[in-house]
Amino acid sequence: MALIVHKYGGTSMGSTERIRNVARRVAKWVRAGHQLVVVPSAMSGETNRLLGLAKELQPEMPGPAAMRELDAIAATGEQVSVGLLALALQSEGVAAVSYGGWQVPIRTDSAFTKARIQSIDDARVRADLAAGRVVIITGFQGLDDAGNVTTLGRGGSDTSAVAVAAAMKADECLIYTDVDGVYTTDPRIVPEAKRLHTISFEEMLEMASLGSKVLQIRSVEFAGKYRVPLRVLSSFTPWDIPLDEEARSGTLITFEEDEKMEQAVVSGIAFNRDEAKITVMGVPDKPGIAYQILGPVADANIDIDVIIQNVSHDGKTDFSFTVHRNDFARTMDLLKNQVGPATGAAQVLGDPKICKVSIVGIGMRSHVGVASNMFRTLSEEGINIQMISTSEIKTSVVIDEKYMELAVRALHKAFGLDAEAAAQA
Amino acid sequence: MALIVHKYGGTSMGSTERIRNVARRVAKWVRAGHQLVVVPSAMSGETNRLLGLAKELQPEMPGPAAMRELDAIAATGEQVSVGLLALALQSEGVAAVSYGGWQVPIRTDSAFTKARIQSIDDARVRADLAAGRVVIITGFQGLDDAGNVTTLGRGGSDTSAVAVAAAMKADECLIYTDVDGVYTTDPRIVPEAKRLHTISFEEMLEMASLGSKVLQIRSVEFAGKYRVPLRVLSSFTPWDIPLDEEARSGTLITFEEDEKMEQAVVSGIAFNRDEAKITVMGVPDKPGIAYQILGPVADANIDIDVIIQNVSHDGKTDFSFTVHRNDFARTMDLLKNQVGPATGAAQVLGDPKICKVSIVGIGMRSHVGVASNMFRTLSEEGINIQMISTSEIKTSVVIDEKYMELAVRALHKAFGLDAEAAAQA
Repeated sequence: MALIVHKYGGTSMGSTERIRNVARRVAKWVRAGHQLVVVPSAMSGETNRLLGLAKELQPEMPGPAAMRELDAIAATGEQVSVGLLALALQSEGVAAVSYGGWQVPIRTDSAFTKARIQSIDDARVRADLAAGRVVIITGFQGLDDAGNVTTLGRGGSDTSAVAVAAAMKADECLIYTDVDGVYTTDPRIVPEAKRLHTISFEEMLEMASLGSKVLQIRSVEFAGKYRVPLRVLSSFTPWDIPLDEEARSGTLITFEEDEKMEQAVVSGIAFNRDEAKITVMGVPDKPGIAYQILGPVADANIDIDVIIQNVSHDGKTDFSFTVHRNDFARTMDLLKNQVGPATGAAQVLGDPKICKVSIVGIGMRSHVGVASNMFRTLSEEGINIQMISTSEIKTSVVIDEKYMELAVRALHKAFGLDAEAAAQA
Repeated sequence: MALIVHKYGGTSMGSTERIRNVARRVAKWVRAGHQLVVVPSAMSGETNRLLGLAKELQPEMPGPAAMRELDAIAATGEQVSVGLLALALQSEGVAAVSYGGWQVPIRTDSAFTKARIQSIDDARVRADLAAGRVVIITGFQGLDDAGNVTTLGRGGSDTSAVAVAAAMKADECLIYTDVDGVYTTDPRIVPEAKRLHTISFEEMLEMASLGSKVLQIRSVEFAGKYRVPLRVLSSFTPWDIPLDEEARSGTLITFEEDEKMEQAVVSGIAFNRDEAKITVMGVPDKPGIAYQILGPVADANIDIDVIIQNVSHDGKTDFSFTVHRNDFARTMDLLKNQVGPATGAAQVLGDPKICKVSIVGIGMRSHVGVASNMFRTLSEEGINIQMISTSEIKTSVVIDEKYMELAVRALHKAFGLDAEAAAQA
């Protein structure tokens, strides 16, 4: 008997018929002798509907008092879906009980609309499991110290599920989603992309943060911190496939690097076209200049990703960095009108038509020449590299957006991912 | 400065535009210097939508575990509407905060789908009022001792509003609804019906329980128990009518009988066609026979309204009683197949096509001949009375359903209600 956490997304919960299928799948696991905790999202479309109503009543940027209300409103989406799933399970003859995050409680800080989980009280849940009940807990939300409902932000249900699994010391956390696992890269761009049977937590973190939309990055961080075995698998398989087969499907995110090291040097190719590049040219190369340029950007709550500083010429240097494309106009405005003049910059240039392509792999730690292989491959395709950024297990390049697919395909092939992958498991 | 509770029904909360109008009305009261607590219902149609989803997943009669889930699901309707109203008020420049029943908390027993309020903690609400905020509290729901969400049953938001007003010792509880007050009878049947400016709590209780759908009866009981001044008024007046005019509109339910005694002997004519009559003929007239007949009916959770026992002939007697028309078939089945044979009844007769018409008035306490005036009026119209039931302030008759409108019109006229009424206030 194992303690298993299942997480289902909004699509899986999208209608009563689909909820019934989720119930049947969960019932299959219960009948195989497992204890189950289920964390479903709101029915698809529901969170948007609720926030749409709210926006009609307060179209401006919401202040703190309004954000508190937005959270209370949005949280009802999951409160409905947990109740419906409990009813569906009962209808299948399986004892089940639902809880809102506030009932468990799942304690968070008070950062409305983007709260962070601080602790989970598992007493009530354990008592229900011991009594033979499936426990269904709302994703995406919790309770702050003042007794207010908070939400974790979009995609927060993944994080809720992992946090619950960590608190309960679950044997595995299964994230049922609309893809059947983590791939070496996006199959829509490289048809030869293969599903990875396992991926290390650190690689997954890089893949998630670099634009692979399979899992919310915070949930991966959480899984890493608490060493929660996490599996991403398809919610589209029929509910009645054999449990053994289901339990081995998808991609397992592991903490056992040793085996992994024997595998491919590069596990996957990630990419992201949500960024924009800004270059501040000809600023004096003196101590504190990086802070003078980037401090005001951070103060404006704009996230900076890649940062490059050129070597200086004649006491002048150039800074380049990338921001989310949604923040591009705001950042350009800030730099042209404030930071640029203040620092004596010669020019501020912006380019929103860039993309970032990365190779990710734990094997890079122990293999030399991986980055140079990447640069050679891009060079052979005639792709100019604008920026380079490296970490222990990934190398990213910023290139012209129009070369993105070409770069991803060439790298996928160059690092032998077209051929192998699926051989792992 | 007064402390005022407003209650708005589902129609008033039916769209964001309507919610905005509620916010403007509340803001008007705040700007006049009052402290406001608002108890809104769910947006119209929302509770039905939610329970419809639930029914798709568990169509059978729900057991206790399912009823817990139904309550948690249904309660989200009001949780959305309080949040939206808070946002709308903030948009009008009025500080506002919303609470779910569990946050106040409003404590109830654990009778899911028909819970009763046991206590309300007013500390949090008072703190918000003192800080200048409008407090918006979900109607229809509370929290039981085990931390489960409960609902009070349909129409429970009226009760929530009155209970909150009682707990807060509010100066007045205003129930905004789709009628502009309590009438001497239903104007759809008697066009001459007049709005009552005041009605005593006891009369209102009789009017409410006899089928006048203006207020949920439990809310009236609550108002009586805690002497909450209660006003029923229209939610259809423009939000910007002068506050003085609005504050005097509708019908005030009072506890000051003295003035009232000077008024009409009969305040109103109530009627109800939701009942059915059952007669058990020729049972032995011996001690315990009433219990033998009605005990099994009560045990089957069937509410009995009017009960008549005839004088006996030759040691035999007849019993007649009325039940809700929805329970008619079940009751007949019970009596024909179980109770009848067990008690040696000669015959069990049923008639679902009856109605109950009542005259209600505190003045009846001190005036003789009121009931006989009623009987004479009906006799003059050729209406046969099948059953009679009396209490201190009302007299009810059961008659053939087809005479209902005729009886109501004749009685409205006979007791001088066509003429007077509106003169009171």
